Amino acid sequence: MNIGILTIGNELTSGRIADTNTSYLAREFHVRGWDVPVSMAVGDEAGAIGEALDFILERSDAVVVTGGLGPTADDITTECIAKYCGLPLYLDEAVLQTIRERFAARGLRWTDNNAKQAMFPQGAEPLRNPVGTAWGYVLNRGGKLIAVVPGVPMEVKRMTPEVLVPLFEQKAGKTYILTKTIKLFGLAEALIDSALADLPLAGTTVSLGFYPRFPENHLVLTARSADRARAEADLALIGKGVVERLSRNIFGYDEDTLEGMIGALLTEKKLTISIAESLTGGLIADRITNVPGSSAYFERGIVAYSNRSKTELLGVPEEVIREHGAVSRETAVLMAEGVRKTSGADVGLATTGIAGPSGGTGAKPVGTVFIAVSDGTRTVCRDFAFKWERRRIKEITTQWALELTRRFLAGESHVQ
Amino acid sequence: MNIGILTIGNELTSGRIADTNTSYLAREFHVRGWDVPVSMAVGDEAGAIGEALDFILERSDAVVVTGGLGPTADDITTECIAKYCGLPLYLDEAVLQTIRERFAARGLRWTDNNAKQAMFPQGAEPLRNPVGTAWGYVLNRGGKLIAVVPGVPMEVKRMTPEVLVPLFEQKAGKTYILTKTIKLFGLAEALIDSALADLPLAGTTVSLGFYPRFPENHLVLTARSADRARAEADLALIGKGVVERLSRNIFGYDEDTLEGMIGALLTEKKLTISIAESLTGGLIADRITNVPGSSAYFERGIVAYSNRSKTELLGVPEEVIREHGAVSRETAVLMAEGVRKTSGADVGLATTGIAGPSGGTGAKPVGTVFIAVSDGTRTVCRDFAFKWERRRIKEITTQWALELTRRFLAGESHVQ
Repeated sequence: MNIGILTIGNELTSGRIADTNTSYLAREFHVRGWDVPVSMAVGDEAGAIGEALDFILERSDAVVVTGGLGPTADDITTECIAKYCGLPLYLDEAVLQTIRERFAARGLRWTDNNAKQAMFPQGAEPLRNPVGTAWGYVLNRGGKLIAVVPGVPMEVKRMTPEVLVPLFEQKAGKTYILTKTIKLFGLAEALIDSALADLPLAGTTVSLGFYPRFPENHLVLTARSADRARAEADLALIGKGVVERLSRNIFGYDEDTLEGMIGALLTEKKLTISIAESLTGGLIADRITNVPGSSAYFERGIVAYSNRSKTELLGVPEEVIREHGAVSRETAVLMAEGVRKTSGADVGLATTGIAGPSGGTGAKPVGTVFIAVSDGTRTVCRDFAFKWERRRIKEITTQWALELTRRFLAGESHVQ
Repeated sequence: MNIGILTIGNELTSGRIADTNTSYLAREFHVRGWDVPVSMAVGDEAGAIGEALDFILERSDAVVVTGGLGPTADDITTECIAKYCGLPLYLDEAVLQTIRERFAARGLRWTDNNAKQAMFPQGAEPLRNPVGTAWGYVLNRGGKLIAVVPGVPMEVKRMTPEVLVPLFEQKAGKTYILTKTIKLFGLAEALIDSALADLPLAGTTVSLGFYPRFPENHLVLTARSADRARAEADLALIGKGVVERLSRNIFGYDEDTLEGMIGALLTEKKLTISIAESLTGGLIADRITNVPGSSAYFERGIVAYSNRSKTELLGVPEEVIREHGAVSRETAVLMAEGVRKTSGADVGLATTGIAGPSGGTGAKPVGTVFIAVSDGTRTVCRDFAFKWERRRIKEITTQWALELTRRFLAGESHVQ
């Protein structure tokens, strides 16, 4: 099954906004075993839209068109599609009714141009949009599908699994497609590859996709079979095989986030955490507090950028900083212990290091980092030598700090 | 001048990585007055590449091709371009020499497949890559330019202004193209539009581009003229006109960032700052510490998520929290004052609010936010009622906190 992608809008061809729909759609299709032979972006211009459709449909079984379904004059996608297919437009009264109701429910003023969003090419089947006003629709043109959806990324992300994928699954034939994402951190792509080299994929219905998402790596397993039980069994088998080979570096699955996993562990164990950050500058606390409900277990964060704040707020003795330096194992451990004790939290996490571009020395170059975690009984500290520039050093340090905390809380042995 | 864009790579059509080059290139071309009639992505496949080039060149004066210039077997762009143009490949000895030197300088082991990167279609002019191994090249095919550059975004961002733009400027004729970006915050697009409605653009060589970059708005002025002095004068005139109309909401120009502006103001005035964050959870400190050298003026940050931490670390009396709430003007002001005094910094900045999704009440719904800034003599506090979800509330609050601090430090009168 080949599915082309066409995004429409002057805001794309002028670089006014960046298109995120194409890579999202391509990935969703790819993990289901469908190819995307070509993706294109053109402006709001009838000639270009028609020529692009010709080009794509020649090479595809279906095309997903996004954008240009709004109520304003420059939203011409539906008009162009109808013209392209040689079909008149019709007003769908049932859809119009839902749009009017949506306006009423939100207290928005109705203007007649909104009726435009209930116009479809004759023969099109409207596709419900669970999160926006504009409906999508699908047309069958000589066996090829033209599926049209609004361009708002949030709406595309809802309509794809709920509406588009079932549509294409139906066309692709009664194939069950099951996917599972395994999220890894702390292992280079080449090492993941070689660890999985003997995975018994042959003879199963499973294929493997590798998606680097700095600083994480995502492995997507896709099972495809007309026999649902078979697809399920294969997915479970291969999933187990990956876990056996890489469990030390797996932090979660599917929609999991590292900060969410930590929140779940803290909640489960009824523990609280406080964080002392030097080089990460607040980024760890920022990620921890992205989780709804984190106020239940996150006591406080200290961005101890100055030596004075390390001493005053965390109780790191001046002599330790003088003797070992603010960037040292000794300081990191005392910061973690200090923030835990002074805040009354159960767990303390601390980072110190040199983010650069200046501040590096021969013995401690830019990228030198220490991360410590302590619960009062057990303290671990790990050092790193990163090679990136300032922002990436902050990001990778934050990821490692979260990952070490997750391993610490989960009682995993390889926390160091 | 019409310039099409073709990105090549299976990593794009599979959604393995998101393409950021297209929107970058489209914007760089658009602000110079060049149109992008179409952009496309295809996989590493000779047939598709040729057909895509046909489609694009029919509609463009030039095409920029990115990706597939590496040394490995699946990097087939040059081969395909040569075949498409009916040209043999040649080895450019001078380019080969620079590649060998680059390997030697970095202590990398030379393997013969790297010589592939010195192969070009006969008649192509190699284009130097200032930051990577792979050179680009340009071909003139019946008056139309085919410019090929590596796909690494950092390399595209260097080669575009240094190599591609001069190339297209030459083709477009001796036109001077000058641009200036004006960065705004805190004003809706419609208000910016209406404020600029009487801008005397007519009769000048300047055009205006509007680029929303949440939560900022960027206005790009482009002057195009064969007469350089004219372009400069027009750009200065319109730039002045924009500043006159919108100065209250302009925080910087071109490469400026809000956190960088604050750093410059603090440095200039020899002041230090400390930050107390509740709902922003460390995001303000994170942005402040993204600026190299920020340790010179950033004393500390306190992520005072719990009431206890607000009292213990910032000296907010328990009674104030009990009476007015942790999310209140009174608490915000005492947090800003508290973090300033206890840290010994010159300026204190504080945020408190409800990021949601839970925690809202009738009187203080999700999105209620207070931001306070104090230097001991003067304290300002502003409240907001944001409508977004958790992450966006954190981001917009952080932006407002930085903007109010900038106005406060700059002595601007509209800080409230």
